[in-house]
Amino acid sequence: MYDGIVQDLIDEFGRLPGIGPKSAQRIAFHILQTPNFDVSHLSKLLGEVREKVRFCEICGNVSEQDRCSICRDPRRNEALICVVEDAKDVAAIERTREFRGRYHVLGGAISPIAGVGPDDLRITQLMQRLADGSVQEVILATNPNLEGEATATYLSRLLTTLEIRVTRLASGLPVGGDLEYADEVTLGRAFEGRRVV
Amino acid sequence: MYDGIVQDLIDEFGRLPGIGPKSAQRIAFHILQTPNFDVSHLSKLLGEVREKVRFCEICGNVSEQDRCSICRDPRRNEALICVVEDAKDVAAIERTREFRGRYHVLGGAISPIAGVGPDDLRITQLMQRLADGSVQEVILATNPNLEGEATATYLSRLLTTLEIRVTRLASGLPVGGDLEYADEVTLGRAFEGRRVV
Repeated sequence: MYDGIVQDLIDEFGRLPGIGPKSAQRIAFHILQTPNFDVSHLSKLLGEVREKVRFCEICGNVSEQDRCSICRDPRRNEALICVVEDAKDVAAIERTREFRGRYHVLGGAISPIAGVGPDDLRITQLMQRLADGSVQEVILATNPNLEGEATATYLSRLLTTLEIRVTRLASGLPVGGDLEYADEVTLGRAFEGRRVV
Repeated sequence: MYDGIVQDLIDEFGRLPGIGPKSAQRIAFHILQTPNFDVSHLSKLLGEVREKVRFCEICGNVSEQDRCSICRDPRRNEALICVVEDAKDVAAIERTREFRGRYHVLGGAISPIAGVGPDDLRITQLMQRLADGSVQEVILATNPNLEGEATATYLSRLLTTLEIRVTRLASGLPVGGDLEYADEVTLGRAFEGRRVV
């Protein structure tokens, strides 16, 4: 539709997740028409992110060093490991400031449909971390959906052989949500997990 | 939330129009975690788009040469000029394949609230194009909103001094739309512009 580079840039942005053709066009024109938009900075970051960012050799979180900032932090409780599917989940949990232990990023969830089995996840590395007996609790924080539940079930069975407390994040009504609009499964879980006040 | 570069990249994507913090994070991780994502290509395009893409000296459309592909095309009718607010509008009209004339990109619309007056638009350049009397019709294709209508009204008054036919794109019901859901103004315009079948 456009001449050369402009269309190339639109196509390239359109390949990113969550960006449709209209948004891609809007972004390309924004870059083109905003004189103080720092193109070279974005360009530089794109190069650096591939070059310098890797995955923590212990937990699999994103890091610019061999070990991520959480695994390097001596104040974090090493006896507590929170298992998540993705590095984005680490950031989400960190935002709550509720958890002071360490993480283990699986790199996905078991999904027969997507062809992802246990061997495709960082489960061997998790078992290695648990081998020396210093970890007291593993919190399974995979997503509360089909794949996440399957992964949690698989891991909890695997971990019964070890003398470690295995927990799962609570399911229930979202805070600020309306009971009326909760789906049956969530509402059922909220009943199951009800607590004495 | 993340270490250095990853967060920088998320912030940078978050500055683009229509990309919120969650989308920015998703995009950054997509780039990070997709091994065959061509980072250098996107980087290169970002540099080139600023360096090589300029605005057509005649119509103001985006172009990699002094004159855009439409202004260079001898098959396009020079006697017909379609006036639009933005280069994105040129692309939208080109997709219809209905129009075989030339364009004139104003670079915005008159908006007292945004502080955009006639002098901020490429109106002088339009008048220069019309000076030699070769243009027979000017189609005002500014947006059918407050600013676009104001701009069209301003231009139509300005052009009455010249012996040129001045037209405005039809307003009416969107094709495939539902009469029931049309707003009153659009429905009113559809009545006004009704045609004998």
